[in-house]
Amino acid sequence: MSEVRRSLPVAQAAPRVRRDAAANADRVLAAAMALVEAGGVDTLTMDRVAAEAGVGKGTVFRAFGNRSGLLAALTDETERDFQRAFLTGPPPLGPGAPPLDRLLAYGEGRLDLQRVHGAIFRAMQGVSIERFGVPARKVSVTHVRMLLRQCGIDDALDVITEAVLGPLDSDTAYHLSVERGLGRERLIADWKTMVRRLVG
Amino acid sequence: MSEVRRSLPVAQAAPRVRRDAAANADRVLAAAMALVEAGGVDTLTMDRVAAEAGVGKGTVFRAFGNRSGLLAALTDETERDFQRAFLTGPPPLGPGAPPLDRLLAYGEGRLDLQRVHGAIFRAMQGVSIERFGVPARKVSVTHVRMLLRQCGIDDALDVITEAVLGPLDSDTAYHLSVERGLGRERLIADWKTMVRRLVG
Repeated sequence: MSEVRRSLPVAQAAPRVRRDAAANADRVLAAAMALVEAGGVDTLTMDRVAAEAGVGKGTVFRAFGNRSGLLAALTDETERDFQRAFLTGPPPLGPGAPPLDRLLAYGEGRLDLQRVHGAIFRAMQGVSIERFGVPARKVSVTHVRMLLRQCGIDDALDVITEAVLGPLDSDTAYHLSVERGLGRERLIADWKTMVRRLVG
Repeated sequence: MSEVRRSLPVAQAAPRVRRDAAANADRVLAAAMALVEAGGVDTLTMDRVAAEAGVGKGTVFRAFGNRSGLLAALTDETERDFQRAFLTGPPPLGPGAPPLDRLLAYGEGRLDLQRVHGAIFRAMQGVSIERFGVPARKVSVTHVRMLLRQCGIDDALDVITEAVLGPLDSDTAYHLSVERGLGRERLIADWKTMVRRLVG
């Protein structure tokens, strides 16, 4: 028996094993996604995923290492699916629809994805959204929201406030001015252009 | 001597000590700010701050604990100054100017502040802006930027792209939909309203 297996050409045996492993990995990822969508990230355990996928627990561990590895693979997989959809999928998300329609479809798709990704990121990193609770940020949000309202914006005020504050976030401002090379003056000028566009 | 000091009423001695300590702390913060503005956060050491402020190194440690404490106090102080300016200071940042002018002045002031705060946050937390280097994010930035250009936006494209992506960030989306209670449908609808306003 061992002799027979050894006699199999490695070049053909390997793909078979990889195909099986890949098929199992796909089933595990699909099962993990189903669990997360049904009950949230907290319900995702290696045991439950294995049971849901109909594979042994060892298979799940061999394919993904641990729960964090599984969660990371899940975000990679869903991100790749979404990328395929907006780069080459059918309209309105993919090519063929007018650009505004594509943009609106992108945002809707991204927000749907973030419900899953966000929960996974928070589960993996611990809650990292304390910044929204920082008193200084709350003061700024209240201030900018008030000014936007005074400028005549009475719809979508929370979202527009976040859009306006986004490029002012210290990481984003650094990324734009230094890493993307806008520099200080240009960043300020472009931020103002954006605000004037929004206020109309 | 010891007898004399003991005979001083504590109720009067304490404010004097606190006043001196507060004055020293102010001088240390001003010196720290001067160092950071002149040479960046990296040039800020407890030794140099003490020398620059003309106080003993022990005074700096007593007031701020360590370098991180000093950096945190520095951001608190500059944030408070900025808050005073936009809440109650002179126009156009403070009350009295038209709301759009105040909003534009707010952004400019915040971006100036972030050059210092951003450097301090990065120094305190280590570089936390890897998210801008994540391939998936780059793909999304390129995609949204292209669609915005196709929608006719040819100015401030980098900043507008970040503004559009801001509310789609997983932390921000979670904050808006769950913590601020917009919910999924409303968040999507409001994001679309914002994009339509921007595209015009």
